[in-house]
Amino acid sequence: MTEPSAAGAKTVKSTNITRVTHRVTVTDRWVRNGHQSGILWFTGLSGAGKTTLALELERQLHADGHQAYVLDGDNLRGGLNGDLGFSPEDRSENIRRAGEVAALFADAGVIVIGALISPYEADRQMVRAMRPDLFHEVFIKSDLDVCESRDPKGLYKKARAGEIPEFTGISAPYEEPVAPELIVDTANQTVDQSIKALRDYISANLFQDRAVEVA
Amino acid sequence: MTEPSAAGAKTVKSTNITRVTHRVTVTDRWVRNGHQSGILWFTGLSGAGKTTLALELERQLHADGHQAYVLDGDNLRGGLNGDLGFSPEDRSENIRRAGEVAALFADAGVIVIGALISPYEADRQMVRAMRPDLFHEVFIKSDLDVCESRDPKGLYKKARAGEIPEFTGISAPYEEPVAPELIVDTANQTVDQSIKALRDYISANLFQDRAVEVA
Repeated sequence: MTEPSAAGAKTVKSTNITRVTHRVTVTDRWVRNGHQSGILWFTGLSGAGKTTLALELERQLHADGHQAYVLDGDNLRGGLNGDLGFSPEDRSENIRRAGEVAALFADAGVIVIGALISPYEADRQMVRAMRPDLFHEVFIKSDLDVCESRDPKGLYKKARAGEIPEFTGISAPYEEPVAPELIVDTANQTVDQSIKALRDYISANLFQDRAVEVA
Repeated sequence: MTEPSAAGAKTVKSTNITRVTHRVTVTDRWVRNGHQSGILWFTGLSGAGKTTLALELERQLHADGHQAYVLDGDNLRGGLNGDLGFSPEDRSENIRRAGEVAALFADAGVIVIGALISPYEADRQMVRAMRPDLFHEVFIKSDLDVCESRDPKGLYKKARAGEIPEFTGISAPYEEPVAPELIVDTANQTVDQSIKALRDYISANLFQDRAVEVA
């Protein structure tokens, strides 16, 4: 049995806690679903295409009968992370919680697609450490100028006008992944090409019968 | 598409957020899985049997080919909620986050079983408000003296000795559910009888073909 570790929590404040073990293992779930689970962690600038690709990938995986679910950073900020802002500390806590939730979904047998800017390398490493066996860092890569020209939410314009403090790429840093499992180049690829790259990666890493049988 | 609302968050601190809509609806997922999803929220005293019943129910539902997952309060306190203690405020935040995660799982098509003491009526109402259409309050009911005689984790003994402050039922309140969807009387039933009551409830409420078809 495997379940998210407390890797993300700096300190576990609770005492008198008895961790329980599920009687259904993650491998049991893989066998039931016909595929492995995993955390596909999409990181990249605003406008790079994280959400667009995540939602289309979710649609296609579902259509093919697989268990897939998107955790979108913006949606989480309307719920679980609604108490957090954009300071470095709050961004880290935002990623920590999203990572813990992603780890729960992966433990439940789901291919979970996290779509969050997650600009800090240390935060992404923190999420990896929660479930290193199931974590896949996917760099949704696009140049800042391309992202800014797309500006799907009008946020770059606001950021340039000084209306959004701490905006990633403009007034807050984005640390590119050092060794991501996959790079999806959305500046030079169509959405279809990017989706194909993602599906090829999933087929090679999560859809191998061998993996399901021997894991 | 339906996704957890921000009902639980007292204030949504984030601005410049664009909520996105999944292309896979919760109903799509029900059709795929052959059953509806839902939040079965087990509330009750420590020792009432929440975790025991949750893990056995998860095992049986999985064995029958359904998507089910347990969110156990103790396990969450080792991860997502590792930064929280047992003050009333921290207990509320503990329940809020667990509720938001449960709502995400239900949105993903899973029968999610929350096993948390959740002693405050207001907190449970907060979780209900996140997904009222999918929330089922299940009171795992047992007298305090029965729970204390079981004392599976040795916590009542510690609490009586004054070693655990704010222990529910001893030095912190437990507010019984006012109108739960289901009461499971574990003081007067065997585990098998309690599981049968839970499975009957699920069959009547989540396994109706009609519901999957017309929802």
